[in-house]
Amino acid sequence: MATIKVPDHVPSPAEDCEQLRKAFQGWGTNEDLIISILAHRNAAQRSLIRKTYADLYGEDLLKELDKELSSDFERIVLLWTLEPADRDAFMVYEATRILTRNNLAIVEIACTRTSIQLYKVRQAYHARYKRSLEGDVAYHTSGDIRKLLFPLISSLRYEGDEVNQTWAKSEAKILHEKIASKEYNHEELIRILTTRSKAQLLATFNHYNNEYGNAINKDLKADPKDEYLKLLRTTIKSLTFPERHFAKILRLAINKLGTDEWALARVVASRAEIDMERIKEEYYRRNSIPLDRAIAKDTSGDFERMVLELIGHGDA
Amino acid sequence: MATIKVPDHVPSPAEDCEQLRKAFQGWGTNEDLIISILAHRNAAQRSLIRKTYADLYGEDLLKELDKELSSDFERIVLLWTLEPADRDAFMVYEATRILTRNNLAIVEIACTRTSIQLYKVRQAYHARYKRSLEGDVAYHTSGDIRKLLFPLISSLRYEGDEVNQTWAKSEAKILHEKIASKEYNHEELIRILTTRSKAQLLATFNHYNNEYGNAINKDLKADPKDEYLKLLRTTIKSLTFPERHFAKILRLAINKLGTDEWALARVVASRAEIDMERIKEEYYRRNSIPLDRAIAKDTSGDFERMVLELIGHGDA
Repeated sequence: MATIKVPDHVPSPAEDCEQLRKAFQGWGTNEDLIISILAHRNAAQRSLIRKTYADLYGEDLLKELDKELSSDFERIVLLWTLEPADRDAFMVYEATRILTRNNLAIVEIACTRTSIQLYKVRQAYHARYKRSLEGDVAYHTSGDIRKLLFPLISSLRYEGDEVNQTWAKSEAKILHEKIASKEYNHEELIRILTTRSKAQLLATFNHYNNEYGNAINKDLKADPKDEYLKLLRTTIKSLTFPERHFAKILRLAINKLGTDEWALARVVASRAEIDMERIKEEYYRRNSIPLDRAIAKDTSGDFERMVLELIGHGDA
Repeated sequence: MATIKVPDHVPSPAEDCEQLRKAFQGWGTNEDLIISILAHRNAAQRSLIRKTYADLYGEDLLKELDKELSSDFERIVLLWTLEPADRDAFMVYEATRILTRNNLAIVEIACTRTSIQLYKVRQAYHARYKRSLEGDVAYHTSGDIRKLLFPLISSLRYEGDEVNQTWAKSEAKILHEKIASKEYNHEELIRILTTRSKAQLLATFNHYNNEYGNAINKDLKADPKDEYLKLLRTTIKSLTFPERHFAKILRLAINKLGTDEWALARVVASRAEIDMERIKEEYYRRNSIPLDRAIAKDTSGDFERMVLELIGHGDA
């Protein structure tokens, strides 16, 4: 359900590198050439290109891109070119810094990656920043948000589909009690959301819905502006229905006064090879306009071209 | 610094299996034969023996041992035969059950294994119990102990030796303030202990000692019987000086009225291939009697023989 298109006959990494090298040289940068190569190679191929580039020219391709490109276009090309685990490590780092603080992005990464992927992200973080990801998340947060984000990003959930119905019932009851008494930061509520498997949580939320008459996320809308409550809802949504979560993030990014290119780049770069096809379906279902058209109306230039190549266009 | 001795010429796994099979058959079990084989094979060899046994006889060697052996001897042979990650997963599981509750063992495992080992333990837990280790630890604990154990067992610490002296100072100050005001469960104190690298913590504790005149663990002895404080001290000791921690656990296990064979087996089975030589040195330094003699005086029968074969004897 990826949206990127890799040509039937892929040039060798050395040929790609030669073209990229050309795109950087001469008067101005040839952005179209860069897009035509990088947007149409999968993660393994991009990784090989980066390695080959270093071998051939003794330079890090990422540093070259950093030198040649700028602003939003640069950011999406860099995010896309990074290996997935490294990209997530970078985005979590960004999300903990003051100027680019983004707790929602941390929740999103914690809830939509698999356990093995999260482990690799944490390894990549060690290698990049010489300290632990969960330590930085804890250091840069406090109070209820820390209480939620730390276990969320540290847990490695079980991924089998076994469900214990007894727990689903008893834990739906706990969730309902805590929500009813507005103890949204209760340690039991956080324990359940942060440690149970996705299959188990789905059963718990279904039981909640059946037994107490509302979807749990509806009951968590008491104060739509409260950041902590919003993160709780994002946790639940992105654990149980990630495509819908991503479609919503894209909708908000596009409908904003002044498009949110950061969010757009984050979602497109991390999902184009995973489930972007399903995200586009969800987007269309909710907005009655195909995602590529919505993006084309709202963005422009190299950034627009790069995004559209990654999500596919004209086929909706 | 392992203490187990593997013979120069190791029989093939099939030969070992044949001998083990013999040890199980006929009148009574031949414990000496079992010890002479299993106590002198390293983890990779034992794993191969277990696999070969299943291939040859269609039975799980662990189940056979479980059938043939009993009590403390059985437990140490089973612990020893398990693969390290699987053994730790099993011991954490045990440590969360009501009848065998042992928070100290959880702290020990969390603080003395490497990040990659802890990751494998959590994978092994998934495979064995169909849920997450950190979820079970959270489920079976509460209050301050949960607040400490959950991040301790979930963190994957950075393992490089870079140290940030600015943090060492500022975090030593935080630790000292919280300890001085008896806020032992403060979230900042827990954040520091559970997420910083071992090298960073060592610098922080040294700074604490230099600046405030006492080793941090001394300041945490306000109430020696308080379990939470004891776990904090164990955390610090086993992060910074694991051999001394293990030597202490062995001393307490042996000096108890009625030896604590569980603790003895836990430490011996998990350290005989790692750092038991250093643990024996620490033991001798503190008790003026070699560990093997202390154990020989205090235990008996097959259990004693197995332990002594694993830690080495007569060479002190």
